[in-house]
Amino acid sequence: MKAQLISIGNELLIGDTINTNASWMGQFLTELGFEVTQVHTISDEPALIQNTLRQSLEDAQLVITTGGLGPTHDDLTKKAIADLFGMDMRLDPEVLAFIKELFEKRNIPFSASNQEQAEIPDGAEVLFNKAGTAPGIWFDRNGKYVVVLPGVPYEMKYLMKYRVADKLREVFGDVGFFHHRYLKTAGIGESTLSDQVLGDLSGFLNDGVSMAFLPYAGGVTLRLNGSGDTKEEARASVQELADTIYERAGHFIFGEGKELTLSEAVGTALKKHNLTIATAESCTGGLVGDHLTNTAGSSAYVQGGIISYSNSVKVSQLGVTQHDLDSVGAVSKEVALHMAKGVAERLGADIGISTTGIAGPGGGTEQKPVGTVWMGFWSADQHFAVRALFTKDRIMNKQRTMMVVLEIVRRTISGIEELPYNLQKHTV
Amino acid sequence: MKAQLISIGNELLIGDTINTNASWMGQFLTELGFEVTQVHTISDEPALIQNTLRQSLEDAQLVITTGGLGPTHDDLTKKAIADLFGMDMRLDPEVLAFIKELFEKRNIPFSASNQEQAEIPDGAEVLFNKAGTAPGIWFDRNGKYVVVLPGVPYEMKYLMKYRVADKLREVFGDVGFFHHRYLKTAGIGESTLSDQVLGDLSGFLNDGVSMAFLPYAGGVTLRLNGSGDTKEEARASVQELADTIYERAGHFIFGEGKELTLSEAVGTALKKHNLTIATAESCTGGLVGDHLTNTAGSSAYVQGGIISYSNSVKVSQLGVTQHDLDSVGAVSKEVALHMAKGVAERLGADIGISTTGIAGPGGGTEQKPVGTVWMGFWSADQHFAVRALFTKDRIMNKQRTMMVVLEIVRRTISGIEELPYNLQKHTV
Repeated sequence: MKAQLISIGNELLIGDTINTNASWMGQFLTELGFEVTQVHTISDEPALIQNTLRQSLEDAQLVITTGGLGPTHDDLTKKAIADLFGMDMRLDPEVLAFIKELFEKRNIPFSASNQEQAEIPDGAEVLFNKAGTAPGIWFDRNGKYVVVLPGVPYEMKYLMKYRVADKLREVFGDVGFFHHRYLKTAGIGESTLSDQVLGDLSGFLNDGVSMAFLPYAGGVTLRLNGSGDTKEEARASVQELADTIYERAGHFIFGEGKELTLSEAVGTALKKHNLTIATAESCTGGLVGDHLTNTAGSSAYVQGGIISYSNSVKVSQLGVTQHDLDSVGAVSKEVALHMAKGVAERLGADIGISTTGIAGPGGGTEQKPVGTVWMGFWSADQHFAVRALFTKDRIMNKQRTMMVVLEIVRRTISGIEELPYNLQKHTV
Repeated sequence: MKAQLISIGNELLIGDTINTNASWMGQFLTELGFEVTQVHTISDEPALIQNTLRQSLEDAQLVITTGGLGPTHDDLTKKAIADLFGMDMRLDPEVLAFIKELFEKRNIPFSASNQEQAEIPDGAEVLFNKAGTAPGIWFDRNGKYVVVLPGVPYEMKYLMKYRVADKLREVFGDVGFFHHRYLKTAGIGESTLSDQVLGDLSGFLNDGVSMAFLPYAGGVTLRLNGSGDTKEEARASVQELADTIYERAGHFIFGEGKELTLSEAVGTALKKHNLTIATAESCTGGLVGDHLTNTAGSSAYVQGGIISYSNSVKVSQLGVTQHDLDSVGAVSKEVALHMAKGVAERLGADIGISTTGIAGPGGGTEQKPVGTVWMGFWSADQHFAVRALFTKDRIMNKQRTMMVVLEIVRRTISGIEELPYNLQKHTV
């Protein structure tokens, strides 16, 4: 079953926005069993939208457009497609009522251009959008289908997951069976994982079974793709490959699932061992706490944290000594350990973790270049500090520190001795 | 001068790779004065490459392809295009020598598929690639041009900067001058800004002057595009439009620059008024502190913060009273104000800000539905709390809260009375 995507918006063509919608959609449709054959990125000119859509429908059974459904005057997708299909516009009372209510709740005045968002091509079906003001639209063209979605990623994803996926299954029926598993690793680079840990896996791959390395900041996701004539066959096809990967690289894998995050896995481990955590952050400035609390229900194990960005806060709120700051400096094993201990004790948590480093771009010295970070771990059982040297980039350094310190927590409470990237434990 | 891009590769279609090449190229070509009218993302099938290229050349004077030049067997771009143009392949001795040397240096065996990389369509020009093994190729088609580049971002960028840019200037001559300004707003929605604040701007727009609304989480970027025969003319062309926008919407604009963030603007305002800040975060879990410290040099004004995720930390570290927690609850004006005051006093900052809310997806009640957030502001001069109702989505609620509380800080210390989204100040 072939699908094509049309991404609409000048901001994509001049490069102000990276087209992440197309890649997300590519994954989503591939998993549903579609073959995405082309992505067209075009500006929001009605004639171009119409020509591209007409052409896409010649090849594909499904065409999905994103973008060009916002409230400003240059958003013309909906009308262009209605014109192409010879449809008039009608005002949808349900959509109108929803948008009006949304605006009232937020105390925002309702304007004429908002009213236009409730206009729908007559004969098309509304895909009700609870995530925003622009509904999606579903066109049935004699057994081929056109789906028109807003370009805001969060709204597009909502509509794909909760409106479009079921309808696609309904109309396209059996598109073959595919099974995908996402094994998520942290604290190891792609080439080390591939060459040194996993080694040769070709004996487990064939026409129906493949795998891909998908690197992300802090680790690598292994995607295993299987197919078969039944659901069970598709699922079973990747079992041997998965078993082998777990055998060879099990302790690098923090869990499975496309959307699973490391902080979620850390949360699961904390809950399993009935532990609470508190964070003392200097160079990460709150990023570790932010990620830990992205998981719903994290209040069960996150006690809180202290962002000790200035040295005075390190002293007054965490019990770091002025002597240490003067003699070894804020970026040191001693201060990292004190911070971790201090935050656990003062906030009453079982585990305290800390970050203190030189995020950059300035502030580096020969002995402590930009990217030098100390991370501390403290619990009743054990405490240690870990030194890492990351990059020259401030944002990247914060991100890497966050991922490494969370992976240190996961491995330590799971009884795994080896630290991320083979880093070493230091004690005082 | 019109340009089209053809991005070749299955990994782009199935979403394993995000097409960052296209956005980088879009920016690069826009700045050179080209109008990128379409991006085609296609798989590496020879017939599809040929059809897409033929079609692109009908509209555009310049077509650039990326991808499909690597050493593996499914990389067919070069031959497909040679066939389309009726060219034979020839072995380029210079390229061959360079690749062989590279392999010797790295001690990698040289194979037949590597030799193919030195094959060039006869009649086309080699764009020598010092950054990798696949050279770029330049085709002159009677005053229209086709450029074929590898898909590895680093190699593609090298060739664009050091090989292609000069040749484009040479063959297309003076393509005019362009000037772009990015005016960044926060705390106002796209439709309100467009319809009620800016109103009709058509009198300031013409063939050489246009503008675009680029919404992002928390605000809207206004991009002003001007053009002219000289740099000065291009710059001057958008001046009247910019002046008018500042006149009508000045206090929503936190600064200019494509990459400027709100937290950077808040930092600038704090430094200007010689103020320090501390954060007390509950529902945002550290996100506000994280963003404030993304700016280099933020240690000049960020004192630190307390992430009071649990109620016990609100009491022990911030002086929130158990009585308030019992009577009005943690998500209340009283607690928000106490948190802001507590963190400013305990961390010794001029300004304290706080967030406490129901991020979701669970935990909502009829009176305090998911998305309800109280934010507090405390300084020696004034203190108030602000109530907002955001979405049902946890991550979005954290993000929105962060943006609104930062914009409250920016406006308040800049002497702007109106709060983001017309929210109201509450005091006890």
